[in-house]
Amino acid sequence: MVSERRGFASDNAAGVHPDVLEAVTAANVGHAHAYGDDEWTRRAEELFRRHFGPSAETFIVFNGTGANVTALQALMRTYEYVICPETAHINVDECGAPDRFTGGKLHGVATPDGKLTPALIEGAIAGVGFEHHVQPRVVSVTQSTEYGTVYTPAELAAVVETARAHGFKIHLDGARLANAAAALGCSLGEACAGADVVSFGGTKNGAMLAEAVVFLDPALADGFRYIRKQSAQLSSKMRFCSAQFVALLEGDLWLRNAEHANRMAALLAERAASIPGVRITQPTDANEVFAVLPPEAIEPLQREFDFYVWDERTGEVRWVASWDTTEEDVARFAVGIERVLRG
Amino acid sequence: MVSERRGFASDNAAGVHPDVLEAVTAANVGHAHAYGDDEWTRRAEELFRRHFGPSAETFIVFNGTGANVTALQALMRTYEYVICPETAHINVDECGAPDRFTGGKLHGVATPDGKLTPALIEGAIAGVGFEHHVQPRVVSVTQSTEYGTVYTPAELAAVVETARAHGFKIHLDGARLANAAAALGCSLGEACAGADVVSFGGTKNGAMLAEAVVFLDPALADGFRYIRKQSAQLSSKMRFCSAQFVALLEGDLWLRNAEHANRMAALLAERAASIPGVRITQPTDANEVFAVLPPEAIEPLQREFDFYVWDERTGEVRWVASWDTTEEDVARFAVGIERVLRG
Amino acid sequence: MVSERRGFASDNAAGVHPDVLEAVTAANVGHAHAYGDDEWTRRAEELFRRHFGPSAETFIVFNGTGANVTALQALMRTYEYVICPETAHINVDECGAPDRFTGGKLHGVATPDGKLTPALIEGAIAGVGFEHHVQPRVVSVTQSTEYGTVYTPAELAAVVETARAHGFKIHLDGARLANAAAALGCSLGEACAGADVVSFGGTKNGAMLAEAVVFLDPALADGFRYIRKQSAQLSSKMRFCSAQFVALLEGDLWLRNAEHANRMAALLAERAASIPGVRITQPTDANEVFAVLPPEAIEPLQREFDFYVWDERTGEVRWVASWDTTEEDVARFAVGIERVLRG
Amino acid sequence: MVSERRGFASDNAAGVHPDVLEAVTAANVGHAHAYGDDEWTRRAEELFRRHFGPSAETFIVFNGTGANVTALQALMRTYEYVICPETAHINVDECGAPDRFTGGKLHGVATPDGKLTPALIEGAIAGVGFEHHVQPRVVSVTQSTEYGTVYTPAELAAVVETARAHGFKIHLDGARLANAAAALGCSLGEACAGADVVSFGGTKNGAMLAEAVVFLDPALADGFRYIRKQSAQLSSKMRFCSAQFVALLEGDLWLRNAEHANRMAALLAERAASIPGVRITQPTDANEVFAVLPPEAIEPLQREFDFYVWDERTGEVRWVASWDTTEEDVARFAVGIERVLRG
Repeated sequence: MVSERRGFASDNAAGVHPDVLEAVTAANVGHAHAYGDDEWTRRAEELFRRHFGPSAETFIVFNGTGANVTALQALMRTYEYVICPETAHINVDECGAPDRFTGGKLHGVATPDGKLTPALIEGAIAGVGFEHHVQPRVVSVTQSTEYGTVYTPAELAAVVETARAHGFKIHLDGARLANAAAALGCSLGEACAGADVVSFGGTKNGAMLAEAVVFLDPALADGFRYIRKQSAQLSSKMRFCSAQFVALLEGDLWLRNAEHANRMAALLAERAASIPGVRITQPTDANEVFAVLPPEAIEPLQREFDFYVWDERTGEVRWVASWDTTEEDVARFAVGIERVLRG
Repeated sequence: MVSERRGFASDNAAGVHPDVLEAVTAANVGHAHAYGDDEWTRRAEELFRRHFGPSAETFIVFNGTGANVTALQALMRTYEYVICPETAHINVDECGAPDRFTGGKLHGVATPDGKLTPALIEGAIAGVGFEHHVQPRVVSVTQSTEYGTVYTPAELAAVVETARAHGFKIHLDGARLANAAAALGCSLGEACAGADVVSFGGTKNGAMLAEAVVFLDPALADGFRYIRKQSAQLSSKMRFCSAQFVALLEGDLWLRNAEHANRMAALLAERAASIPGVRITQPTDANEVFAVLPPEAIEPLQREFDFYVWDERTGEVRWVASWDTTEEDVARFAVGIERVLRG
Repeated sequence: MVSERRGFASDNAAGVHPDVLEAVTAANVGHAHAYGDDEWTRRAEELFRRHFGPSAETFIVFNGTGANVTALQALMRTYEYVICPETAHINVDECGAPDRFTGGKLHGVATPDGKLTPALIEGAIAGVGFEHHVQPRVVSVTQSTEYGTVYTPAELAAVVETARAHGFKIHLDGARLANAAAALGCSLGEACAGADVVSFGGTKNGAMLAEAVVFLDPALADGFRYIRKQSAQLSSKMRFCSAQFVALLEGDLWLRNAEHANRMAALLAERAASIPGVRITQPTDANEVFAVLPPEAIEPLQREFDFYVWDERTGEVRWVASWDTTEEDVARFAVGIERVLRG
Repeated sequence: MVSERRGFASDNAAGVHPDVLEAVTAANVGHAHAYGDDEWTRRAEELFRRHFGPSAETFIVFNGTGANVTALQALMRTYEYVICPETAHINVDECGAPDRFTGGKLHGVATPDGKLTPALIEGAIAGVGFEHHVQPRVVSVTQSTEYGTVYTPAELAAVVETARAHGFKIHLDGARLANAAAALGCSLGEACAGADVVSFGGTKNGAMLAEAVVFLDPALADGFRYIRKQSAQLSSKMRFCSAQFVALLEGDLWLRNAEHANRMAALLAERAASIPGVRITQPTDANEVFAVLPPEAIEPLQREFDFYVWDERTGEVRWVASWDTTEEDVARFAVGIERVLRG
């Protein structure tokens, strides 16, 4: 029995955009060289250059964790550490994979909104030149953040400037970069300007299973194809991943999907904010809404609608809109919240 | 421009069976919980139990290397080693991933045909109890082997018995297990009987991108879902991988695909063997043909047909048949070989 | 030119107790089997059983980091994490070695005094059973702590009880366990009661270079000698390390050294506390004194006496007494502090 | 009860040269900064420059495995491999430590005498530029070899030239470099000319516990002190290790010890070769003798004299002479062999 209902648990719960599926189907013709030596992959790489700049070097991988752990391996040595928000996906949602693949450490910094700032970065620098201490090497930001907020170009530039001043490399987790670019009204490349390497997410943007490591500084990609292979992130029938990126990036599908999800999140935030007992806790910059509900309301609401509790202690919850969320989904959910909160 | 021609480079070069693609498309309905908490995954797990035995525990991963490195992590500690054929995929085709993920070593044993035997295993046991030496712990066999040969039940049972006598665990790389089962006329479970854990390949059997780690000894699966996640092998929209296995395993598609590929390989071997100057070097038990050609013939032939040289020094080549190889493909290739060899 | 002056930088700055050196010299007779198959090592192992209990299994290693990283490897898998004080040596002073050797993570908990408590442990438990999150597995305490404080038996028992209730293993970093036992007036075994494995420090207690991993739960030592060897912590001419432990543990040298260092620290704390402008920040339970000085006094004082600033921001400094610290050293230092603070 | 008898098991079974012990004792004066910031370490570093060249950068570590695993980390990435003799200590006697610390693989090459040659190196180069295969990066030679043979300058130069032609780095395991230099009548630096980094052994040369990583190419030492610390190879009371090197390298103690051991081995080889039933299997270039004895003679002989069987299958045994081996030891052993072989 298939549930046709759409909830707000995650953009991972959504299916595949029909155009993406059609591209996958269209790629299923004859034989193609395995491991990315095929025309879909070449086409995808070209499209990445169009969106991220002419010198971008792209490597397609399976999933977001795969993108993050391979990208970080390219940036650091085992005795170095990453400065990132405490809430970063790499820090709390990847079962220690980044630490293990790199051999290094992550230094999570408490932030009010998921964003690093120059001051937060400065505060996380410790033990430089002291051999007993891991050495700071990478700043990792998420755009849009795990709190659904978006760095403005000025905010990101300030982070980049601080990192550069210390000689750090900059990793950007762009699992939802499309949502950030849509929010900022800029290109994908502009939304991550200054980063050295980007984990770019297709899956949450309407793909089935497609992520990419995009080196904006191509010098850092040296040896990366061995890292990808050794990290078990090289697809044999890669054309079927690449075709998904072609579908997203050839026209403006990536943008339409992201704009739509952002719009639905904004609508939900607006509706929810007007319900007594609901407090929106973060700016709804992209496609995620964070809110505090009365604790006793959460479980009854979850019985009807899929979503996650973000923080057990505060009763903060997270609602994520997807490319396929409809205004009716939002309306039905808002009504549900009202009903449950009225008791 | 899409090449519609089918070569013999690899079963990875083939596309996706239409029924698999249809199942993927059919899974694209509404929302589903991410990370495998969905009905397609539950259905796939049930089907694995049907094929591998009621206690089998299955974990779907992205690719063959991913299956191998996670499976091996479940079996060994960092100071232990794997006994495997020198030609094993884990030993020579995974860029050192198994060594790195496990922290241990691989001990590759020269074999005439890609198969381990009790004597070869015994010969690879060294340094037991000697703390300066890594300790033998896992025997890894491939079924069907990298040489396209298939262990008979008796051969596999002898390997298992030897391994058990030493307290070793048994990993089976089943990237082409379907081809082995088809060749043996037995079930998938019977084709790997005695193994503790199997890397089961869907991709070469007509899937798009789907592999699985199947624990025949479920006690060894303890903690494995953390290993899978930490190894970056957990798919978020897993239903689209699981649906591929449902398509292959629900009816007999896995078998039809494998039988067909095996038949095409046998046909090619038969045709090629009759061509003067061609020497078939291995029994064509499954879907791979190994042959020695006159060195000067190889490059001209490769200009027309895709295939790999297996051993530069001996002029041995490998031809792989797929689920979509046709009799016309074989005939055209055989004619091509004849033409090139006639000079 | 040798500096004969004794400072308060670290008990690592002290030399070797003459009795230890004499034991090393005495061991230099004839040939002995390498790698610990010698009578000094057997004698040391027996002495460890006398001090830590009849089932204790001991493995001698080179240094404290070596002891910690090998001990932790015996307790956890790559997807697990250690709960420890934020200030723990394993967390901040070993250049990420514990994370790298184990493949897991450390979760540092802020503490006022370097001690974990049941509540602090409970607060550090997160994501249990959630495959995206590393799993809690080990509680690591330091006795005496990095703040020179000592867990009372009741405090340690409470920590142990909490850890056990969750099924965690308990590692105790005993780089200064002798100082703790001396402070508590109990045996070495009693000072770490409830731990599963102890990193026992000889070096800070008057040895030259000798540390040991002591398994109080010998079942956990399974395979440990391979871990020690693979971690490059197995000494070839081990008798010269073992002889140091024989010297410390055969009589009461360990205790005399520790009591003396503790007494000198207490004397220094007492003297310093009476100086206007000095604030002692931690109980001087063992051989370390923590104090806050006026920031402008620190550098002038360091020009005369060796010691470390513990916290740049607060002006907190650390003074460590050693087995060879004399009352004159303390008096001279106290006078120096007074002089500098008077300006 | 102490055995005063000297056997031929290993130069690790020997004790410490009195001059080394005296230097250790002399270093036990007052306080010294920990972790190598002391005058003994500075003096040792200077002496290494005298012996290995003015740009040599030296890092003292605990043991040979520690030297090898840290040196190799400085030379390679996780997806690269080391070409070394099959019999190399790093390949068979370090419990997989080099593989684990580096994340890469070792490719052991069969040799008749423990020496690599240009042809053997060429034969071990595989899969260059092929992402499925680990990439060759380091050539590791041992001087003197595990078979007690010594590379002539011309042999070593040929190896170096071949390695350089492929862009490889060169690691030299110099656990017995002193014996090689003594045999060649050259300096330590000349005995390893062309290498990038050397694991230099003090322990087998009469020290107690002292090894060093010597970078002949100092550019490769970048970041190495973090590698040493993270690999748990940084001694706190380092002066006591450094003092051992000062004793060996300040005058010609290193040379006298090595020459003596070599002379005793030569004497033993000469005596043994004259005994019917004994066949010397390798040139006795340095301080090790390899011989084949009648299998039934081995155990009776081992009951009286300590030595190891090198190859169970062939009955080949290894006898090692040390700095403290006497002519009487050799004579007594030779008489013992004769007696046992006469039956």
